[in-house]
Amino acid sequence: MDQSARASDFNETELIARFSTHLSSTEEVVLGPGDDAAIVRAVDGNVVVSTDVLVENQHFHREWIAAEALGHRSIAQNVADIAAMGARPTAVVVALVLPADVLVEWIDDLARGMGDACRAAGASVVGGDLSAGERISISVTVLGSLDGARAVLRSGARAGDVVALAGNCGWSAAGYAVLETAQENEDAIPAHMRKFVDRHFVPEPPLAAGIVANKAGATAMLDVSDGVVRDAERIAHASGVTINIDGTVVRHLARPLAAAGQYTGYEPENWVLGGGEDHGMLATFPASVVLPPGFVAIGRVEAPGQELVLVDEAIPTEDVGWDHFETE
Amino acid sequence: MDQSARASDFNETELIARFSTHLSSTEEVVLGPGDDAAIVRAVDGNVVVSTDVLVENQHFHREWIAAEALGHRSIAQNVADIAAMGARPTAVVVALVLPADVLVEWIDDLARGMGDACRAAGASVVGGDLSAGERISISVTVLGSLDGARAVLRSGARAGDVVALAGNCGWSAAGYAVLETAQENEDAIPAHMRKFVDRHFVPEPPLAAGIVANKAGATAMLDVSDGVVRDAERIAHASGVTINIDGTVVRHLARPLAAAGQYTGYEPENWVLGGGEDHGMLATFPASVVLPPGFVAIGRVEAPGQELVLVDEAIPTEDVGWDHFETE
Repeated sequence: MDQSARASDFNETELIARFSTHLSSTEEVVLGPGDDAAIVRAVDGNVVVSTDVLVENQHFHREWIAAEALGHRSIAQNVADIAAMGARPTAVVVALVLPADVLVEWIDDLARGMGDACRAAGASVVGGDLSAGERISISVTVLGSLDGARAVLRSGARAGDVVALAGNCGWSAAGYAVLETAQENEDAIPAHMRKFVDRHFVPEPPLAAGIVANKAGATAMLDVSDGVVRDAERIAHASGVTINIDGTVVRHLARPLAAAGQYTGYEPENWVLGGGEDHGMLATFPASVVLPPGFVAIGRVEAPGQELVLVDEAIPTEDVGWDHFETE
Repeated sequence: MDQSARASDFNETELIARFSTHLSSTEEVVLGPGDDAAIVRAVDGNVVVSTDVLVENQHFHREWIAAEALGHRSIAQNVADIAAMGARPTAVVVALVLPADVLVEWIDDLARGMGDACRAAGASVVGGDLSAGERISISVTVLGSLDGARAVLRSGARAGDVVALAGNCGWSAAGYAVLETAQENEDAIPAHMRKFVDRHFVPEPPLAAGIVANKAGATAMLDVSDGVVRDAERIAHASGVTINIDGTVVRHLARPLAAAGQYTGYEPENWVLGGGEDHGMLATFPASVVLPPGFVAIGRVEAPGQELVLVDEAIPTEDVGWDHFETE
């Protein structure tokens, strides 16, 4: 194939056909792509749905992230939202905006990343839309099934519950800082920090942990997209409780990030508390529950009414979490 | 309120809260916005799903279309895909990309248009995502329910079937041409052509016709987004048939567009055959079926095997329909 072929050398139908070769289907799909709409099974008569958009120069830079990683990431962060309800991802639709000069090879790689991430999550791409545009954007909507189980909302945390976390924490933020520092110094990325950079580009949300937490009786859950403190605050608000995070555990979680901290000059504890986009599962469980595999206790739900997140000991909690629109 | 306030004056949470005030909910919504995902009823154990994206400078120009009309249109064209399956729209998720300098008033108007269009379609906005970006884009995913009925696919047309159309045809294309001509001539838009311009900005897909066609036994259906000829070709391809469109009917459908044709110098018949984005329902019915209200017979499904669309008499069928990526 001509490696220099670009999106503008093909029509929409041809591009969609190329894209589709990288996708596969499951038996949950009653009707796949190609008609006006797709049809997906919703076994228990309910469908769980969430949407997210990745925008060039906002969430990623084309020069920094490989297309395959971007495809993977666009799916991973969305299926995490389904997992955070205690549900199972079933199907995905994708609305893709691509500049006409994007290499077709880049599109192939993007599709490959999406296909792989979907297969890993047990979901199928059942439809999509493709448009030209000045900047790349990738809108992904994921459908999921609770398979008859209740949903784990943000609002169910009760005083006395244990706060627990599954998955990486602060790795994505550390990876971003390592990338920046390496670029400033014109360094190659140090080999033992590559894993953080990889997790920055492609988070690995612990999807199974969401369903397991649901079965174990989690009272509240979300996936950490804006940092443990800010996301714990969301549970605190929705549940009307105070959450106390254990500083000792924070330091423990920061330990693997120590080398990245030294290299970049940042405090690893801040990555643990404020680093988003790892999409770990932050859940609360009744104290009587044995934490399911993968979860580590990081704090406690305290007396109701305050809707605050406190971290014991002198760990700085300012400037953690982030917002797209807020001008700093 | 400060009329000059812009998106960048608010954070994401505040903008979403503003947006949400214009939306309403139905009893189909088990869990609305605010958690990691929403939950929507899927009464018959299946969910119909479709997605579309509107991109600034591709599908619309910010200076030309009012925000309320844009919001309306973004929903209307998507729910049309659900109707074209013979299904009923139930819920919507929206991924919105907005430049930081967009006026908050503009966002309010967009939300109002979306809310109104959703209410008209019987659907609720159950979730969304909001990101800053250089250009506006609006990705809408619609969920729908067949309520136990079969889906009307593109592939069911059989020789002998009647081809029928519900809704406007060529109005959006005529409206676009009128706009262009008025702008070139620095005219105000002639009053009796305003309705075509309105339909260009806000299509009015005949949603009820989709469900009615399903009940009446339609064998194939889609909504006309790229022109009757191109979309009839899709049915011809999927069904392995030839479709013959009646030139007399085309001239009949073109008659209301005559004044716009004169004003702009275009052939109204070409708008009828090639004009997209009216989102009328194009369906095939067994010859024995009495066409449901709103449908007009426009042709016949002929012997299988050719997968062509023919228009009898000397109506030009070239340069009809359009494609985003093809360079003309």
